[in-house]
Amino acid sequence: MIVVMKPSASQKDIDNICNIITASGQTPHISQGKETTIIGIVGDKTKVDKDILRAADGVENVVQVTESYKLANRKFHPQPTVVKVGKDDTVDPVYIGGKNFVVMSGPCAVESYEEVRSTAEAVKKSGASILRGGAYKPRTSPYSFQGLEVEGLKILSQVGRELRMPVISEVTSEEAFCNALPYLDIVQIGARNMQNFSLLKAVGKTKMPVMLKRGIAATIDEWLNAAEYILSEGNENVILCERGIRTYETSTRNTLDISAVPVIKTKSHLPIIVDPSHATGVRAYVAPLARAAAACGADGLMIETHPDPAKALSDGPQSLTFDMFDSLCKELRPITEVVGRSF
Amino acid sequence: MIVVMKPSASQKDIDNICNIITASGQTPHISQGKETTIIGIVGDKTKVDKDILRAADGVENVVQVTESYKLANRKFHPQPTVVKVGKDDTVDPVYIGGKNFVVMSGPCAVESYEEVRSTAEAVKKSGASILRGGAYKPRTSPYSFQGLEVEGLKILSQVGRELRMPVISEVTSEEAFCNALPYLDIVQIGARNMQNFSLLKAVGKTKMPVMLKRGIAATIDEWLNAAEYILSEGNENVILCERGIRTYETSTRNTLDISAVPVIKTKSHLPIIVDPSHATGVRAYVAPLARAAAACGADGLMIETHPDPAKALSDGPQSLTFDMFDSLCKELRPITEVVGRSF
Amino acid sequence: MIVVMKPSASQKDIDNICNIITASGQTPHISQGKETTIIGIVGDKTKVDKDILRAADGVENVVQVTESYKLANRKFHPQPTVVKVGKDDTVDPVYIGGKNFVVMSGPCAVESYEEVRSTAEAVKKSGASILRGGAYKPRTSPYSFQGLEVEGLKILSQVGRELRMPVISEVTSEEAFCNALPYLDIVQIGARNMQNFSLLKAVGKTKMPVMLKRGIAATIDEWLNAAEYILSEGNENVILCERGIRTYETSTRNTLDISAVPVIKTKSHLPIIVDPSHATGVRAYVAPLARAAAACGADGLMIETHPDPAKALSDGPQSLTFDMFDSLCKELRPITEVVGRSF
Amino acid sequence: MIVVMKPSASQKDIDNICNIITASGQTPHISQGKETTIIGIVGDKTKVDKDILRAADGVENVVQVTESYKLANRKFHPQPTVVKVGKDDTVDPVYIGGKNFVVMSGPCAVESYEEVRSTAEAVKKSGASILRGGAYKPRTSPYSFQGLEVEGLKILSQVGRELRMPVISEVTSEEAFCNALPYLDIVQIGARNMQNFSLLKAVGKTKMPVMLKRGIAATIDEWLNAAEYILSEGNENVILCERGIRTYETSTRNTLDISAVPVIKTKSHLPIIVDPSHATGVRAYVAPLARAAAACGADGLMIETHPDPAKALSDGPQSLTFDMFDSLCKELRPITEVVGRSF
Repeated sequence: MIVVMKPSASQKDIDNICNIITASGQTPHISQGKETTIIGIVGDKTKVDKDILRAADGVENVVQVTESYKLANRKFHPQPTVVKVGKDDTVDPVYIGGKNFVVMSGPCAVESYEEVRSTAEAVKKSGASILRGGAYKPRTSPYSFQGLEVEGLKILSQVGRELRMPVISEVTSEEAFCNALPYLDIVQIGARNMQNFSLLKAVGKTKMPVMLKRGIAATIDEWLNAAEYILSEGNENVILCERGIRTYETSTRNTLDISAVPVIKTKSHLPIIVDPSHATGVRAYVAPLARAAAACGADGLMIETHPDPAKALSDGPQSLTFDMFDSLCKELRPITEVVGRSF
Repeated sequence: MIVVMKPSASQKDIDNICNIITASGQTPHISQGKETTIIGIVGDKTKVDKDILRAADGVENVVQVTESYKLANRKFHPQPTVVKVGKDDTVDPVYIGGKNFVVMSGPCAVESYEEVRSTAEAVKKSGASILRGGAYKPRTSPYSFQGLEVEGLKILSQVGRELRMPVISEVTSEEAFCNALPYLDIVQIGARNMQNFSLLKAVGKTKMPVMLKRGIAATIDEWLNAAEYILSEGNENVILCERGIRTYETSTRNTLDISAVPVIKTKSHLPIIVDPSHATGVRAYVAPLARAAAACGADGLMIETHPDPAKALSDGPQSLTFDMFDSLCKELRPITEVVGRSF
Repeated sequence: MIVVMKPSASQKDIDNICNIITASGQTPHISQGKETTIIGIVGDKTKVDKDILRAADGVENVVQVTESYKLANRKFHPQPTVVKVGKDDTVDPVYIGGKNFVVMSGPCAVESYEEVRSTAEAVKKSGASILRGGAYKPRTSPYSFQGLEVEGLKILSQVGRELRMPVISEVTSEEAFCNALPYLDIVQIGARNMQNFSLLKAVGKTKMPVMLKRGIAATIDEWLNAAEYILSEGNENVILCERGIRTYETSTRNTLDISAVPVIKTKSHLPIIVDPSHATGVRAYVAPLARAAAACGADGLMIETHPDPAKALSDGPQSLTFDMFDSLCKELRPITEVVGRSF
Repeated sequence: MIVVMKPSASQKDIDNICNIITASGQTPHISQGKETTIIGIVGDKTKVDKDILRAADGVENVVQVTESYKLANRKFHPQPTVVKVGKDDTVDPVYIGGKNFVVMSGPCAVESYEEVRSTAEAVKKSGASILRGGAYKPRTSPYSFQGLEVEGLKILSQVGRELRMPVISEVTSEEAFCNALPYLDIVQIGARNMQNFSLLKAVGKTKMPVMLKRGIAATIDEWLNAAEYILSEGNENVILCERGIRTYETSTRNTLDISAVPVIKTKSHLPIIVDPSHATGVRAYVAPLARAAAACGADGLMIETHPDPAKALSDGPQSLTFDMFDSLCKELRPITEVVGRSF
């Protein structure tokens, strides 16, 4: 952390800052310049309160130069994390991270056993190893379809067991998490709940693999800090998921921040999945962006598929048909080879 | 709702859309143009699923032309809502909305009885009628100070009763809400929880006045839909609070969207408060923006004050001293008069 | 400027950075921490190339802690600049900046002598002292109305002289600037041209007062650097104009960054005008935002008016009628008094 | 175009809109709903002024449902455009668009003959077919290195002819464009000048291939309208270049909008190049994003390389070494094969 003093700062102001730093057990390093004095605090910045420094007299700015997350930080954990998925031997285990490339697929919302079963069969045949399906749907309007909840999870879990595929679904509250625990192999925390800290802590107290989606206005730093909430409670099975951020551009629902993949790979050891379906909201853009994600080193994809997208109760316009999904998987294989992944 | 067909759409595609609309009990209106056919559905759009239309063959786009919120909509409730605050006769009641201009003030975080009491006395004397103080602090990093929780609420409530000021504080989960209920006159839902739908529903099931802060990446439309979650459960005591949105500009913590005030006044009947402290994060900008909010018709302000900002445990740099707060209140009076408000 | 080294940086990397700094005539200050080494360069940062430092081995980040603009910087010019407007004695001079509050008004586009004359009479009577009118219109589509060009400037200038009001109009190229010079008292550089550096330099070589609008995606730092292009060529008569930035919110055309007013007042000595008409694009929001701008300390306003907004060739929806403009001016007077301005 | 009336609109308001539409030679189609009346104008919307409609009484909103660009629109030109590059037989011609995948490479700024020659040899050997180099550098601060201008173009052109590679460089004004014409095979219009309409028109009056970079805050619609300015003057040789947009995320310089590739492919017939160097500003992210661009169907790449990035006068941190560039080209070949391109 670095404290930049105002040109008008007095010696008393500078001494005050040094005292605050010393009082917290750190050592100040003063760089006196022609126009500005800079005071560096190198060490454990969590011990000095940035707000107190910023509020002190004569301070122009306080610049943070190291990250506030530790357990999610690649600096202190250089090997990539591999998360084992599959809660028991009723499913085939899947490994996310490392040299693996994993595709999760299924309908946006669980509607019926038949829909989920036919989708699961099709996507498994094409190459998906994890089955997704929404049961708790966070919807902007209270008047939109909100999901089948536990009934949906039961269907999802049953189909997963029948086909030996681990299953993933979103929970939107601590109560939903408790209800969902028996049915899921991975729990998903959606973009809107990325900073629902009490939910993060609750999930952190279990060993359940968790896929944490990036908030639509979250910086990568905030996202890794949200992961830190889960990790710091003891749950190391954290998977990140980039699903688009909010920008001024309206031709896609959100703007897929594809750069987040190499940035996360540099800053963290956690695996990162890309969700091109929610990022764009447009079926025709899903396959190109899925290929892009594979090419730039993502650890996997989450793709929505549906037997008959035009009749889907939720997010039909972005769901792939089985044929489109199959073609995509064929295209992904040579690309994953280029980046040294097995799919 | 309007369905815009592709130039390449066939008659069969058009018939299909008309059938979907008719099946949901609405009537399609076809406008056949040289290049494009447009099909209007005027009526109760909640009965036709936008996603199904967008996913159908031959559809270029589906444009929503009316809002999805009803109870929050000024069209169906032209009179401004006035929310009465003050749960019992141990405090002086305050009315938010209509011709009133209300200032809420207090420390960012409740730290001690002395701090809250001295702040409350000072701000009441200057003109504040509601006391604020944070007890559950949502913090980006798990290693930052998280608030005194129930202990803090007890202090806040005690001081409020001593000075007969209603009190407001944020809750960050349903559990915190249950704990906080006995102590608060207004419950605040923060920006990070604006789409925590289970919390919104829980608050909606009570009659507790609730101040709903705008999410940092929420559109005004999403914000009013979040309010609709509370209203549709039966709680009409909703107050909105603009506190800055996330943009590319970094010289302020967030960008105060001052235009949200006249936009909300046009679209909704709910009162709107402005929080310039969190929007900017910089003390020197708080008073100018507070005056701006009053001048453009906001129903009130939430301002952080602290006896000694340089020692505050949280958000010190944006807290006003008592003298600065007093000067601000003096400046606000003639401005509120210009816009026909009593303060 | 501060160089933050990677934890993995070697002593050789650190020595290399120190050599680069020394070679440019500056002195490095090393702060060695437990995890990270930080090297401060306090002094004339324009002498050290930030890019070379960032590209060197072992460098994590280079943080700039002082601004790159000098002539626009309040630190080196604490007194507010007052720009005198009115090129000769055929108009009444107007002073922008300091204790003055100035309103510029007129039609979006110059359409005819009658339109400009009737508008000028009306706005002058209500309190405007500078007449605006567009002659070169930058339009997104090549098929939209592009303005009357020199013909429009002649009308504007004639009406200005008849009513003794200085006139302002936008130029969109160096050629347009040359053509416009004889007719204008202030030249406006629009948002799209804020970084048209050859135009900035051309304007900087004259003494013509220039109003530089903020680009819709420009940071305040970039905006002040654009002003620096004009100032560094010798033209000190620079006025800034905030007119909204691009964000994800779509209920207004752009998001008026009202915080830019106090930020500019802190960082620079240049006067700042606010344009609520272009920022919102909606007539009903113009007056509330104009009051907000006055309340937070802007040096003036630019407001579009039109005798019959429903018939305007350009930007009709945001133009005020004469009656609306007159009411607004009445509301502005007590507000400007609160902030110590004369209007 | 669709006019949505307010619920409060009178029959007179509706008649007025119909009259405006009829007067412009179009036909109004009225859809009368329970709450809202909608009036469609299907046909040549350029003949009806959107602003006049929006300003009329009783109008809630005017929604544009078709694009305002025609020549750039895929609807009216379904075959992809292939631009032939190479002004005469002193270079080997290159075709951009269609089944081709083209890599442009070279230093950010032209510094010396030796630097350009060694870079050109290296990148040509690895697979680049077009040589880039900056001579006119648009820089945020007037005190930064601004390029060698014509001297730089001469070096670039000489090396291009020696190695038979067409060359591309940016121009920042009409004057620079005139000076550059004899030396270039492709002229680049940078992000800051995307809406410098007089420059666009000047370039449009020649047949020179032009690469139009997207403005950092430009929507895809505005970008295609900027291309329309060039096309409508008669120059069909337009190539688009995505180079990142401005968002709130700061871990990369800009956010590469990779979705722009499939969006442009859907909306337009013009070729699209991706520039990952400027988008990220960080060397380590360039290769992953270059692979992503190839995988999602871009027509080519622009990549900065430098013999010794740590000594580059401009943008060193994002330049690849020759070895990194060579490895990248090897990775690109199998990816371009997947999407049916020859590289």
